[in-house]
Amino acid sequence: MIKVAVNGYGTIGKRVADAVSKQPDMKLIGVTKMTPNFEAVQAIKKGIRLYTSKENMKVFEGVGIKVEGDVESLLEEADVIVDATPNGVGAKYRQTYQKLGKKAVFQGGEKADVAQLSFSALCNFEEALGKDSLRVVSCNTTGILRVLCTTMKTGKIAKVRGVIVRRAADLKEVKKGPINALVADPASIPSHHTLDVKSVLRDLDIMTAAVVAPTNLMHLHTLYVTMAERPSKDRLEEVLVRTPRIVLSKSVTSTAELFEAARDAGRERADIPEVVIFQDSINVKDNEVTFMYAVHQESIVVPENVDAIRALMGIRNSMELTNETLGVLKGVFP
Amino acid sequence: MIKVAVNGYGTIGKRVADAVSKQPDMKLIGVTKMTPNFEAVQAIKKGIRLYTSKENMKVFEGVGIKVEGDVESLLEEADVIVDATPNGVGAKYRQTYQKLGKKAVFQGGEKADVAQLSFSALCNFEEALGKDSLRVVSCNTTGILRVLCTTMKTGKIAKVRGVIVRRAADLKEVKKGPINALVADPASIPSHHTLDVKSVLRDLDIMTAAVVAPTNLMHLHTLYVTMAERPSKDRLEEVLVRTPRIVLSKSVTSTAELFEAARDAGRERADIPEVVIFQDSINVKDNEVTFMYAVHQESIVVPENVDAIRALMGIRNSMELTNETLGVLKGVFP
Repeated sequence: MIKVAVNGYGTIGKRVADAVSKQPDMKLIGVTKMTPNFEAVQAIKKGIRLYTSKENMKVFEGVGIKVEGDVESLLEEADVIVDATPNGVGAKYRQTYQKLGKKAVFQGGEKADVAQLSFSALCNFEEALGKDSLRVVSCNTTGILRVLCTTMKTGKIAKVRGVIVRRAADLKEVKKGPINALVADPASIPSHHTLDVKSVLRDLDIMTAAVVAPTNLMHLHTLYVTMAERPSKDRLEEVLVRTPRIVLSKSVTSTAELFEAARDAGRERADIPEVVIFQDSINVKDNEVTFMYAVHQESIVVPENVDAIRALMGIRNSMELTNETLGVLKGVFP
Repeated sequence: MIKVAVNGYGTIGKRVADAVSKQPDMKLIGVTKMTPNFEAVQAIKKGIRLYTSKENMKVFEGVGIKVEGDVESLLEEADVIVDATPNGVGAKYRQTYQKLGKKAVFQGGEKADVAQLSFSALCNFEEALGKDSLRVVSCNTTGILRVLCTTMKTGKIAKVRGVIVRRAADLKEVKKGPINALVADPASIPSHHTLDVKSVLRDLDIMTAAVVAPTNLMHLHTLYVTMAERPSKDRLEEVLVRTPRIVLSKSVTSTAELFEAARDAGRERADIPEVVIFQDSINVKDNEVTFMYAVHQESIVVPENVDAIRALMGIRNSMELTNETLGVLKGVFP
């Protein structure tokens, strides 16, 4: 059993903790949390062992939330630490993990040099085997890479140009905006997603732009992919359909309908860890193929975090087990 | 004096009527309106002569709004009719205009075959001279064409790929959505804007995709433009800066800030008839140049409607006069 500690129990951390609990070869030994909010209460209800900083222990006890000990006492017990602390905080923890001699998974909010390798399961799982640290690329980049690394199975990619329409905030981020604006963010091209994709596909000719829109459900991407040779649309769809973590949707054309479909399906938190490609958007013209797809910012990286844990431990067979335990789908959604 | 009738007094019609009133060589002889709402009241207050259908005359009189006569009695008096009726209604009026022997300007909501030529002032003003009917292309297409036809002054364009993030509704369209979704609209590529651009630039290799976002202020476009030869960024910016109806913005990066700036500037209705390019988005890499810019759906076509009237009358010098009378800017916005 791989003993996993999740450092940070927010949007990503709580989902990774739940996912780890479902793995037959892993044991969630505890999570850390700095704020005694509804997420902390829920963790206790689930029987998850909670740790916080020495200074915060009294605050948690003051509101009746039981903590097991301080952060370091948890980290010491782990085989692998999943860092799900806020953007930039992971880099500060890196030394702690190294000092303790622990393997660590970081999130895409950190810079690429936080870990030995930036990781996307469908692209570079083999390269990640046995490393000491991995960085799971961000949600948008995970979406892009799943589509591109799968497309690459049908031929060489010459060029990618894309636009990412980003959700402004997650549901719980009620203080973030915009509420009635489209924001070029950045107003320069390329956006940081270009660099993040290149942290995995180093030589790819890619440019992305990003626009923030006032919604909090999912991102929506458009990609123009130029291939070295004219791709076969049938072959491409065949490969996409049989690749887990990618779902093609025929009737659904918006992020809100996807959220509703996930609620109807009884999914935990209505999460959608698959990248959902709008099937009609797959259009081949000469050497070029187009895609429009939705990315659920809160959950798409969760399967990749689970895979990253196994990759660090040198375990080759991970993706299938992750998909099965988490109910991650493939194929065509009607 | 060119006698102009505006058929339809909604979002576009009321703006075109105001713009026509400001032209030294035109006389607004009246407008038609089917609903006795706040826009009709405002027209009367401005001293605009109002016409409606025979059946509606009693409804207007019932709420105390004075009408001058029925629609045909207005149309008969016009030299040029600007059709600003709802999408698709213009096509039905076409025969009426022809029967009356009147020149007509249609809007981009009609199909291209409604008129002899689809019109964008910076692209094909000369070709439009003396025609009997013109169709001013839609707001998004007007934005795209201003940028492309200006860019073409610096060299041949080989290819354009773009994504349009559309506002979901105008301010007054309170029944339209979405309110919390990103909608691929259409979920196929290309979007109809591709065809609309080709109605003016027939041989252009262009593909566009469109995503609707929950906001009601402006659209935001991203274009990847491949040129036949590597463009000079300095030359391109120089041409853009001196082209009226195009403004480069350095500090503003969102549609909401632009709306606020237009309010501060005391602009009528806070309209922004210029296409506003985010200056930092102009990035040249090899043969490729990128743009991100905002398009105000309610007002961008207004100068083009005024120019279309003059073009129909065979008057060559229009754009400068339109810009001057309407206060349409060029150059760099700090």
